[in-house]
Amino acid sequence: MENKAVVLLSGGMDSSTLLYYAKTQHDEIHALSFDYGQRHRKELNAAKAIAKSLNVSIKILQLPVEIFKHGGPLVDPTIDVPKQEEDKQALTVVPFRNSFFLLFAAAYARQIDAKYVYIGACGDDQRSYPDCRPHFFEAFQQMINAQDEDIIIKYPFVYKSKKEIVQLGTELGVPWELTWTCYRGEEVACGECDACVERLLAFKEANLNDPLPYRKKPW
Amino acid sequence: MENKAVVLLSGGMDSSTLLYYAKTQHDEIHALSFDYGQRHRKELNAAKAIAKSLNVSIKILQLPVEIFKHGGPLVDPTIDVPKQEEDKQALTVVPFRNSFFLLFAAAYARQIDAKYVYIGACGDDQRSYPDCRPHFFEAFQQMINAQDEDIIIKYPFVYKSKKEIVQLGTELGVPWELTWTCYRGEEVACGECDACVERLLAFKEANLNDPLPYRKKPW
Repeated sequence: MENKAVVLLSGGMDSSTLLYYAKTQHDEIHALSFDYGQRHRKELNAAKAIAKSLNVSIKILQLPVEIFKHGGPLVDPTIDVPKQEEDKQALTVVPFRNSFFLLFAAAYARQIDAKYVYIGACGDDQRSYPDCRPHFFEAFQQMINAQDEDIIIKYPFVYKSKKEIVQLGTELGVPWELTWTCYRGEEVACGECDACVERLLAFKEANLNDPLPYRKKPW
Repeated sequence: MENKAVVLLSGGMDSSTLLYYAKTQHDEIHALSFDYGQRHRKELNAAKAIAKSLNVSIKILQLPVEIFKHGGPLVDPTIDVPKQEEDKQALTVVPFRNSFFLLFAAAYARQIDAKYVYIGACGDDQRSYPDCRPHFFEAFQQMINAQDEDIIIKYPFVYKSKKEIVQLGTELGVPWELTWTCYRGEEVACGECDACVERLLAFKEANLNDPLPYRKKPW
């Protein structure tokens, strides 16, 4: 079916906006999430809630956790999540994460006969994460097409800032209170990790209010 | 460490020869195998036996089986494995199989600080499997290098015939009786499926004896 898409959904700000965006582009969308031992497992509940808010099916795939064991603080509980001010975002790189996500999404798309795979990498992610850059997505598309000419990878936010995503998401009606961004998977978002600070900054720049409670706001 | 390699090992003829070959090229090699719900699960025992015969470590990763559910007769017990004479090898394509194997191998290489990843795809596989072609491996290498410049994918058998692999493996001392090729995971190799026939043909062309017992030999 031409007009069917798989959307990678983490339950964060970008991918939730992506799901709402893809819903405007396709007749039928299917969310795909991953359990890869991430510390911020609360995002899986957020992903489910976001999918439900759009009445979209969601599949959660369990990845072999051991392969991400040395993936830094996002998956290793013995390493502290750095505060944003420590400027250690490079530490939160999980090797080949987007490659795994996209490959499983492509296989899922093949299985349910979908043509499109959406990933919500945004412009602000490019500095720290090589697998969020257009060059990587182009190379990934080539690799897929070397064996399957039908599947198309879509990364519509790759030149958008977090501010623009908050604006778009708000226009599309994303229920921000259901999303989860904090890298620490605690009761309440910490407001101190890189992910929290970026999110709060995006809302601030967009002159919008983030309805999520925070343990400590940076301003 | 420069001279360290991960070798994809299925326990079949090609990858067993590959392991023995890689052992002559690197100080330290590590075998990696996958449990993806394949019908011919006996190959996992063969992989273990082959790794043991070289005193090499082996890691078996469990893949989320559901993603391969519509992967044809190799993973779906409700579909019969075709006989070689039926010329239906295209049916035994598991979508993106080598992509998954290589990506997990790259992540494993990153984890144990190895630079090389070996895959045993051979020339005879190219007709039916797009992900066994040099073009695919080149595209995969580009995709990896877009995020990690260090890891090198090696596919030394890509222009070799099965006959040449049997010859090389025999020279290197591969214990053929420990390997497993048959797509049907029964007590004794069937001698009728595509994999069995190809194997027996390779031994015949090389004028060598396959020590493995077969239920029924095609000649």
